[in-house]
Amino acid sequence: MITVNENFLKLQTGYLFPEIGKRKRAFQQAHPDVKLISMGIGDVTQPLAPAVIAAMHKAVDEMAGRETFRGYDDGGVGYAFLCEAIVKNDFKPRGVHIDIDEIFISDGAKTDTANIQELFGVDNVIAVTDPVYPVYVDTNVMAGRTGLAAGQGTYAGIVYMPATEENNFVPSPPSAKVDLIYLCFPNNPTGAVATKEQLKKWVDYARDNRAIILFDAAYEAFISEAHIPHSIYEIEGAKDVSIEFRSFSKTAGFTGVRCAFAVIPKQLRAYTKAGQSIALNPLWTRRHCTKFNGVSYITQAGAAAVYSDEGKKQVRGTIELYMNNAKTIRQRLTELGYKVYGGVNAPYIWFKTPEGFGSWEFFDVLLNKANVITTPGAGFGPAGEGYVRLTAFGEPADVNEALDRISRLSNGFDKLTIV
Amino acid sequence: MITVNENFLKLQTGYLFPEIGKRKRAFQQAHPDVKLISMGIGDVTQPLAPAVIAAMHKAVDEMAGRETFRGYDDGGVGYAFLCEAIVKNDFKPRGVHIDIDEIFISDGAKTDTANIQELFGVDNVIAVTDPVYPVYVDTNVMAGRTGLAAGQGTYAGIVYMPATEENNFVPSPPSAKVDLIYLCFPNNPTGAVATKEQLKKWVDYARDNRAIILFDAAYEAFISEAHIPHSIYEIEGAKDVSIEFRSFSKTAGFTGVRCAFAVIPKQLRAYTKAGQSIALNPLWTRRHCTKFNGVSYITQAGAAAVYSDEGKKQVRGTIELYMNNAKTIRQRLTELGYKVYGGVNAPYIWFKTPEGFGSWEFFDVLLNKANVITTPGAGFGPAGEGYVRLTAFGEPADVNEALDRISRLSNGFDKLTIV
Repeated sequence: MITVNENFLKLQTGYLFPEIGKRKRAFQQAHPDVKLISMGIGDVTQPLAPAVIAAMHKAVDEMAGRETFRGYDDGGVGYAFLCEAIVKNDFKPRGVHIDIDEIFISDGAKTDTANIQELFGVDNVIAVTDPVYPVYVDTNVMAGRTGLAAGQGTYAGIVYMPATEENNFVPSPPSAKVDLIYLCFPNNPTGAVATKEQLKKWVDYARDNRAIILFDAAYEAFISEAHIPHSIYEIEGAKDVSIEFRSFSKTAGFTGVRCAFAVIPKQLRAYTKAGQSIALNPLWTRRHCTKFNGVSYITQAGAAAVYSDEGKKQVRGTIELYMNNAKTIRQRLTELGYKVYGGVNAPYIWFKTPEGFGSWEFFDVLLNKANVITTPGAGFGPAGEGYVRLTAFGEPADVNEALDRISRLSNGFDKLTIV
Repeated sequence: MITVNENFLKLQTGYLFPEIGKRKRAFQQAHPDVKLISMGIGDVTQPLAPAVIAAMHKAVDEMAGRETFRGYDDGGVGYAFLCEAIVKNDFKPRGVHIDIDEIFISDGAKTDTANIQELFGVDNVIAVTDPVYPVYVDTNVMAGRTGLAAGQGTYAGIVYMPATEENNFVPSPPSAKVDLIYLCFPNNPTGAVATKEQLKKWVDYARDNRAIILFDAAYEAFISEAHIPHSIYEIEGAKDVSIEFRSFSKTAGFTGVRCAFAVIPKQLRAYTKAGQSIALNPLWTRRHCTKFNGVSYITQAGAAAVYSDEGKKQVRGTIELYMNNAKTIRQRLTELGYKVYGGVNAPYIWFKTPEGFGSWEFFDVLLNKANVITTPGAGFGPAGEGYVRLTAFGEPADVNEALDRISRLSNGFDKLTIV
């Protein structure tokens, strides 16, 4: 008799965004004439950079010619032209040396952060921030690295580290011993960033405890303050204890194109129960080559164009457009009396719901009364309760319209009391 | 202390194709002037169909415009336009009803056949044919569903079903009770196909034993004989017990573009240890949406064009070119006295090595003396020992040149005795 992986049955209600999609569709069916403005799912709206478009057209043409056609990307770890551009542009200027065989091209940081846990034993203790990107948690539930659901979206056996106003949304290492630590800075959903000093505490903790840090830097392109590190490898000793994830999704608007990469340093090691140390780079190579066949050549050609002179300039322009949105959102919500976080080094704005409103409750108010789609903070964990996330990825005109609607709501919705 | 997934340490030497690549590179470094002809890795050589190229250019242009830009493929399970084309063209004409929410678009059949095992408990008994596509086995080793390596590339705990000349390379269901059965027809590597009667035995076995069949139909487009089923769902009752995998890689030359799909029927169920039945379609939806973010819009637009009138005609033309190669290989090897299988309903030719030569030994002879890259049968399992696989994916001129070289070798290589 075929048995099911019963760990899947521990998973709580659908993944956050499908639930939001469901409520959105229900609203839209009941009110087909209302134009909703989405500030919910972190999806980009601006077209791809002209340099990327040109590179992709060229790559499509290459696929049409017998001499230039490309089949499998040998081994599936990514073309050298892309890995070299990454090393040269993303790491070298920040004083970080990465070898090209430490880069693994993939179809998304979601895929990478979901799959990476396969390298580790089921007995490891996982630590995540709360609120947290649900993928880190759910994939460990599926793998059997947790106990049962423990209420408010949490699971027994996971160490949750609350990110709160008090710690400025950057938790310190726990007193408990943990083995696998998921960190995301600039943070999704809070928009918080970690300083070098804060990250150093984590690297020191990992070195002292033989733990590993999984560092999700998918939003590093949005950092505007010069003192904030873009890579965990800017911290001395981090290559011994950290895997880093990057993505073209938000940097270059690739959410519908799919390209990302993971960095697995060659010196990074995990241990057998008997204490033997095992290098993880060859293990991930084996995993990658066995379960994956590489990213589309056309996509990789487009990603490489992000690093051309024109590509850099164009991509920077789009990020500035989004960050201007973030500034507008911050300013106008603050003027309305909301307590607002993030949005300076990240495309996410994290703001407190009015007194008496839970996250999902305020999500429904914003959907039904202001016709703006947001993301309820509670969807990211118990410490997200009482917050709502907005993304800065909209059209500037839509962002302004959404804020107009929210400000009318604040004056007109009778039960609403702005803190 | 972070522990490693020790199951990875059970894995034997690198995945077959990297090993072939290594030997190829070593030869090429020693003989930089020799032009090797590859008939090894199953990679296509012909450019993409003009209809696909046109659709991809159009999709790239859409990604350049604010109004037509597409971000995330909502939920990541694939665009309706592609799922509908699949249902209408791949299944309906063969009398099979599939709903569009039973189709899951992915980046490759390798990825799908690698990931699908996550849905099942670690205690299930796996059955594979021998020889077998290594991905089925290696991914179960990584997941801990096997014991240690047991020699000749096998692992304890897996039920191997030899595919031999005696059973015409189509094994019957085992007498032992197994839970999860990997079948691949048209077969990689033997090129064998299963008749409806043969598949019915498997479907009956699965129904009687509450087992599940994982049916890899990545090569169905190469079937030329009218009585051979293209889908396992052509067998009555198969939807209750089977998952099917399809791919655009070989059908439409997408090895470098990456698109495939899995079919998970809504009535398909696995069981908890307590005997509760659990539908797998929602479980896979949850897995897909949690660990994956969909396939590039440009790729999906290209895949949909495979089903246009021109697309179908063009893709058919390329398949005919490859199958003419297969015919040439079959004929000429047979004339040389080799025993040859496959190549009629599949792009793979499976032939016996000359007496006294093992698979890897003959691989090395063909590499070093005929400068032709093949795939040693032993790389697919112990029953593949004494066979070599050739693929029909080359340029026709190269195929003829390779066969000229092999025929000179047979006359000139002094130790070689053709059976």
